[in-house]
Amino acid sequence: MKQPIGFMGLGIMGVPMAANLLKAGYPLTVYNRSPAKAEPLVRQGAILAPTPRGLAESAEVVIAMVTGPEALNDLLWGPGGAGGALTTGKTFINMSSVSPSFTRQLAPALAASGAVLIDAPVSGTKKPAEEGALTILAGGPEDQVRELEPIFLALGKKVIYCGPAGQGSMMKMFINLLLALMMEGFAEALNFGRLGGLDLETMLTTLSSGAMNSPLFQMKAAHLKSKQHPPSFPLQHMAKDVKFIVDTAYELGAPLPAGQTALHLYRAGVALGWGEEDLSAIVKVLEGMSPTVATLACPCAP
Amino acid sequence: MKQPIGFMGLGIMGVPMAANLLKAGYPLTVYNRSPAKAEPLVRQGAILAPTPRGLAESAEVVIAMVTGPEALNDLLWGPGGAGGALTTGKTFINMSSVSPSFTRQLAPALAASGAVLIDAPVSGTKKPAEEGALTILAGGPEDQVRELEPIFLALGKKVIYCGPAGQGSMMKMFINLLLALMMEGFAEALNFGRLGGLDLETMLTTLSSGAMNSPLFQMKAAHLKSKQHPPSFPLQHMAKDVKFIVDTAYELGAPLPAGQTALHLYRAGVALGWGEEDLSAIVKVLEGMSPTVATLACPCAP
Amino acid sequence: MKQPIGFMGLGIMGVPMAANLLKAGYPLTVYNRSPAKAEPLVRQGAILAPTPRGLAESAEVVIAMVTGPEALNDLLWGPGGAGGALTTGKTFINMSSVSPSFTRQLAPALAASGAVLIDAPVSGTKKPAEEGALTILAGGPEDQVRELEPIFLALGKKVIYCGPAGQGSMMKMFINLLLALMMEGFAEALNFGRLGGLDLETMLTTLSSGAMNSPLFQMKAAHLKSKQHPPSFPLQHMAKDVKFIVDTAYELGAPLPAGQTALHLYRAGVALGWGEEDLSAIVKVLEGMSPTVATLACPCAP
Amino acid sequence: MKQPIGFMGLGIMGVPMAANLLKAGYPLTVYNRSPAKAEPLVRQGAILAPTPRGLAESAEVVIAMVTGPEALNDLLWGPGGAGGALTTGKTFINMSSVSPSFTRQLAPALAASGAVLIDAPVSGTKKPAEEGALTILAGGPEDQVRELEPIFLALGKKVIYCGPAGQGSMMKMFINLLLALMMEGFAEALNFGRLGGLDLETMLTTLSSGAMNSPLFQMKAAHLKSKQHPPSFPLQHMAKDVKFIVDTAYELGAPLPAGQTALHLYRAGVALGWGEEDLSAIVKVLEGMSPTVATLACPCAP
Repeated sequence: MKQPIGFMGLGIMGVPMAANLLKAGYPLTVYNRSPAKAEPLVRQGAILAPTPRGLAESAEVVIAMVTGPEALNDLLWGPGGAGGALTTGKTFINMSSVSPSFTRQLAPALAASGAVLIDAPVSGTKKPAEEGALTILAGGPEDQVRELEPIFLALGKKVIYCGPAGQGSMMKMFINLLLALMMEGFAEALNFGRLGGLDLETMLTTLSSGAMNSPLFQMKAAHLKSKQHPPSFPLQHMAKDVKFIVDTAYELGAPLPAGQTALHLYRAGVALGWGEEDLSAIVKVLEGMSPTVATLACPCAP
Repeated sequence: MKQPIGFMGLGIMGVPMAANLLKAGYPLTVYNRSPAKAEPLVRQGAILAPTPRGLAESAEVVIAMVTGPEALNDLLWGPGGAGGALTTGKTFINMSSVSPSFTRQLAPALAASGAVLIDAPVSGTKKPAEEGALTILAGGPEDQVRELEPIFLALGKKVIYCGPAGQGSMMKMFINLLLALMMEGFAEALNFGRLGGLDLETMLTTLSSGAMNSPLFQMKAAHLKSKQHPPSFPLQHMAKDVKFIVDTAYELGAPLPAGQTALHLYRAGVALGWGEEDLSAIVKVLEGMSPTVATLACPCAP
Repeated sequence: MKQPIGFMGLGIMGVPMAANLLKAGYPLTVYNRSPAKAEPLVRQGAILAPTPRGLAESAEVVIAMVTGPEALNDLLWGPGGAGGALTTGKTFINMSSVSPSFTRQLAPALAASGAVLIDAPVSGTKKPAEEGALTILAGGPEDQVRELEPIFLALGKKVIYCGPAGQGSMMKMFINLLLALMMEGFAEALNFGRLGGLDLETMLTTLSSGAMNSPLFQMKAAHLKSKQHPPSFPLQHMAKDVKFIVDTAYELGAPLPAGQTALHLYRAGVALGWGEEDLSAIVKVLEGMSPTVATLACPCAP
Repeated sequence: MKQPIGFMGLGIMGVPMAANLLKAGYPLTVYNRSPAKAEPLVRQGAILAPTPRGLAESAEVVIAMVTGPEALNDLLWGPGGAGGALTTGKTFINMSSVSPSFTRQLAPALAASGAVLIDAPVSGTKKPAEEGALTILAGGPEDQVRELEPIFLALGKKVIYCGPAGQGSMMKMFINLLLALMMEGFAEALNFGRLGGLDLETMLTTLSSGAMNSPLFQMKAAHLKSKQHPPSFPLQHMAKDVKFIVDTAYELGAPLPAGQTALHLYRAGVALGWGEEDLSAIVKVLEGMSPTVATLACPCAP
């Protein structure tokens, strides 16, 4: 029989992830600060725990998918917190986005009561979560990550072992840095071409037939064509992530010349009021530094 | 019967391109400053012209694929140059990399003797040239670009119409700017991950399973793994291209915050002696600004 | 009679500052973690307190000049801390470098026991401290800052009122940002001139006769001539300060394009092992990105 | 008796400079494309030459102060040009802003007819020109620069020998790079302080009492206080100069990380329509990337 799982945090990501665990046949207890979110899962067979502690007592594997370190600390060490109930033999998998250093401090705190910590942030957003197509970036003792693979493969299509606890978060930062740079570079190149008299559609066609093509560009092209930026990854989250990456790079001594430039631009996007739009709205920061009458400067006159 | 073509410039790109025109059944005259390069093509049926002028007289469509504006000016206006022989009814297709403004000045010079100018730089390097898989970025009168499509499709897999003469070059700059930014971003993110204790192979695996994946990264990964950077696109060419893009952006008033940062880094790569290596050697510039003992600063200690 | 002062923190800055208070006739109690540092002051008439609390009980005005927020927290809230003894009618002047937000949190904590908080970081280093020539950047209730002016003028030559508690620190960040940018700009321009074949001495002469001259450049010129960078302001402190400024700018939404570039370069200086040299060693980061044989590229051949 | 001088180019700088030569007692011939500008000088004793050639024939030392390389080429090699008349024994002093490479190409062209070339751009604008208080940055054979010192000291207060012909221009670029960086840094730091709740006047007071003070900041403070930027050095000239410096740095392999950032910002200032205002208008580019309601983000709440 499959081991009982407790799942805390029923947000945009958590609900479909928990549903996929149920579908895969895991006995599931769930917890959420506002219990209404749990209803559809309860209808599918999940048990609703009254407190994080109750959840932790009933499960072998406890998964958290919340908004950040504060929410996580609350679930673990707040009133009715799961912390003390994470005893020997239990595993705590944190899939929320926290820093490697937060994770490294959490590991011994959990070890004190006997539990093993796995950090497992994901690459992918709402849609891959629903389709069980996330990529799991796992850090922790390697043998235990391997043992948990069936659970991870109920949530995603791939598990990548990244090293000791904390390295899952480090990998997520690597990927998010590349995301920030590619999106900014895409916007900067398109704005350059626009001012040089190129047609947006034609630029996208050219891009899609060469070696620089990428699913990211295909996904964001629609935003750039429609000049609408409905958020799948809000610009202000990107700004916050890049800030965190730049902070980490500072600690590591890693040079981030383009990363620092990108941080400055994403932060300006937030300052100018576009933080809740998709990160593709970074193009508006570049447009705001451009001449308004492009054609006057355009070199493509007949 | 297919129209007779003249092809000038038998370098790394020119030889396979000319061979593909022969294979497609076009009567072909060729010219190269050092005629030895023409031998394999002559064996395949090409005629060797003694001068650019001779070549232009014998062909309806004249194609040039040389190293830049100086070489092109020589072929057109030097002793025995093709210029005067490009009379009414003939078409001159420049596939060499030159600036939009050079092209815009060339168009009326050719129009004086009756010829039409098409600018048609390519996206793709040696291998796509051999396989007839280039992308042709064409600028000039649209109907004439359409008429030339059979010729272009002997050379490449796709023709993209970019606008009036000069806009083919502009499109090439758009693509090369994105190339410069993505390669630098890739190197910067990998160096960040390395200093944070991540394994290179694992970073590449993670990248290849997400939305930021790109053929470019797959091609350059081998360089980064082997720490060898055999040139398919030399770093010094990238530096020169980015300089030219930054110059064009200056004229247009287009903001290039990341482009300027990238120029600085590629130029440093040349200054430090890595200009003849592949552009992937940009990673060495970032490594040179990094602490040498990464592990001391690494946050991944157990 | 002058009000009794307690002075905590007898480092490079603290000792001469305390001595100047004695010279000005203030009854002075001092405290330092390692009491040996207090000896010369005791010989000049100061009383050594056994604990911060003892010091606070004996003084009306308590001044702290320690290395940062941790040390300050220790003095206030650690065992034998001054915190509880800072009762109604007493004033606590923090001259240590801390953040505006630290200060803003400290103010109500002190208000709870009745004391008023003034933040008063200084502009100037060891020599101005000895000569009583510091500039005091004071934040807090304006009338109380005015009342304390005689004390400040025993320590420095000028008091600048910057606003509510916290704004003294903000002003110090403003000045330190300009310092970081000017020093980096100076180094960047000199390295550019050097590669262009200009003589260092002649560049400095030219600079000193124009509108960009500044005492800073005069002070640092000797370092650049001798290629020795004895620390009066260590590069790693500059890096840390710029990091803190960039963090604050992020919170404020203030664009820092040059500041971010400077952070990257100072941080690289630390990563490359020059953190304990003077901030003028930033020039070595730029030299490390420069061609080693400048003359080959130099345009000044006869 | 003093040697006869010919002065070409009677613009904002040229008129007061020529007047100072007259005052110093030099026999003076002048030339200007539009001769009306010469009237006040003729009234003071200058002779108006009908052509540059006529001027060159009548003078031992010929000075040019025109707007750039095109105007200079016209005066020398256009119809009635001075070029052929600059024979053995004559000296040609170019005080116009041109590139080192232009100067290095000009030297042998003049040597062909026997004349010696001195390049002598100036540091200083209209007011120092009127007061004879310019700094002369002289390049050319050192003994001949020394011989010309009396003439230079009629125009300015100081002559700085910079090396062979071309190095005067190189020195001017060094100084202008520092100007660009200091002005941008000043604007960036002030905008940061403003968003952090500091008072502009108080920031300026703090700056003026520390080691970073500079006549430049004192001159520009009025612009920042009044939010008016009457041009003494137009922003678009600064942008053009920085572009030229960045181009030269590219040739030299000199890293310009802050210079490239500054170029991007000055260019944005031109793109946004502020090119004809003083370079201090760069602050508006930074303000445009800042939140409009500073107080919401401000950390200085009571």
